[in-house]
Amino acid sequence: MIGAPMVESPFEPSYRYGLRVYWEDTDAGGVVFYANYLKFFERARTEWLRAAGFEQQALRQTHGVIFVVTETQVRYLRPARLDDWLEIGVRPREIGRATMTLAQQARRGVELLAEGEIRIGCVDAASLRPRRIPAGMVERIRG
Amino acid sequence: MIGAPMVESPFEPSYRYGLRVYWEDTDAGGVVFYANYLKFFERARTEWLRAAGFEQQALRQTHGVIFVVTETQVRYLRPARLDDWLEIGVRPREIGRATMTLAQQARRGVELLAEGEIRIGCVDAASLRPRRIPAGMVERIRG
Amino acid sequence: MIGAPMVESPFEPSYRYGLRVYWEDTDAGGVVFYANYLKFFERARTEWLRAAGFEQQALRQTHGVIFVVTETQVRYLRPARLDDWLEIGVRPREIGRATMTLAQQARRGVELLAEGEIRIGCVDAASLRPRRIPAGMVERIRG
Amino acid sequence: MIGAPMVESPFEPSYRYGLRVYWEDTDAGGVVFYANYLKFFERARTEWLRAAGFEQQALRQTHGVIFVVTETQVRYLRPARLDDWLEIGVRPREIGRATMTLAQQARRGVELLAEGEIRIGCVDAASLRPRRIPAGMVERIRG
Repeated sequence: MIGAPMVESPFEPSYRYGLRVYWEDTDAGGVVFYANYLKFFERARTEWLRAAGFEQQALRQTHGVIFVVTETQVRYLRPARLDDWLEIGVRPREIGRATMTLAQQARRGVELLAEGEIRIGCVDAASLRPRRIPAGMVERIRG
Repeated sequence: MIGAPMVESPFEPSYRYGLRVYWEDTDAGGVVFYANYLKFFERARTEWLRAAGFEQQALRQTHGVIFVVTETQVRYLRPARLDDWLEIGVRPREIGRATMTLAQQARRGVELLAEGEIRIGCVDAASLRPRRIPAGMVERIRG
Repeated sequence: MIGAPMVESPFEPSYRYGLRVYWEDTDAGGVVFYANYLKFFERARTEWLRAAGFEQQALRQTHGVIFVVTETQVRYLRPARLDDWLEIGVRPREIGRATMTLAQQARRGVELLAEGEIRIGCVDAASLRPRRIPAGMVERIRG
Repeated sequence: MIGAPMVESPFEPSYRYGLRVYWEDTDAGGVVFYANYLKFFERARTEWLRAAGFEQQALRQTHGVIFVVTETQVRYLRPARLDDWLEIGVRPREIGRATMTLAQQARRGVELLAEGEIRIGCVDAASLRPRRIPAGMVERIRG
């Protein structure tokens, strides 16, 4: 599976989130530590949900659900460095009853640095069992 | 691609590394933050290389190469919690001239918590361009 | 020393930086992991320097210096939670030839969540030995 | 306060915990990112408590208390690098009814790399209000 084309890049994001690379994000190779792209991708997803009117803390209190990441796939193409300004894109690929899959990209200007697919499950905040995505939410995030 | 069977789990690791879950590893969901499995997997790979006689800092100084992660795929199956003792497995799937792909798993006793495939490239420490894996190394890590 | 009043809070920051609390910042206690305030403080210092015209990557290339943290003292007063919007303040306390001490605060609206003092040294990027803060910089960051 | 001697170093630790420096711990300066010493210190405190018979997850379930860090003071003396093996020391300085202060050090062989004082509060897991340290615990951790 790895080695096959993962996403038909580049795509046009439904949502874009900008962030700066700080010391905390880098490693001794002088570049952004690869695991941190998962953090960057999540910041963008959180703001994408917020822009659609959904705050995760509020979803937990009102609907008793949280969104958990069930699968991640990331391809690292070019390194990012301290002080770089990155743009993180989000694009829904598939939104089901209790899961969704999102394509994400990290860019520095026109350069594609990393791209991935993130699979998310909607689960009960207490039991962590699958739950239906709250009514009305699917329509608003389909974009 | 996501949704297809990722690795034929479970596998028998060539190397096992044990670690404890600390506060730093958890998130407000009360479980290990998913991005941290990439850190756990890397600690295990580092010790696997060390057990085979290769220290990364030394490889950099002697051969001028570093190993960089070029692709990661992780499936999260069950949550880990504070104070859990996890066993991280490493098994080479394919070792080429300048790249290798490793299957990895995180277990708590017999429970499989997460599994993934990590693709690694051997690159020049300065230019970050692909370099051949140092002679003698392939044989010793093939396991 | 600990237990004595650390900084005469509250102070009026010379610079303010806003940030959102994401999953990556929290721990299983449901709040921001205390070590992460050091990251928040640093993001604010980085943007404070940038606003004064200094980019750290550029300082390294042009002057061959980097700024390293030599001492940190932080007091944690109230917890921050997922989705909170925090304001991080920076105020220089003392700027010397090769070191500076900054007072920093994390606030959520009017609530003071954490406060600290961070001591920074200017060092040679290669040898890590103390170096004079680049000429012209002291005047511009004294605020 | 900063600039004054912080702890009468070196001290003889009551407990020692060993750890390896991995990529995740480093930054673009090529050394361990300073904020990560707080993580290292905490791993050592956790194992120190465990060695005394106390697991934090169990304390939460049985006594409904968690330990929270209320103040940290760290002095960074020498850099640690990838692959270094560090020894983290813990020594109780003062143990009160609902708080304790611990001196901690990070060493690489005989070299002192960082030292600090960490103040901890025992609080109710739900309300985060101060609670007495569980009976019997004080005697066993006083060392």
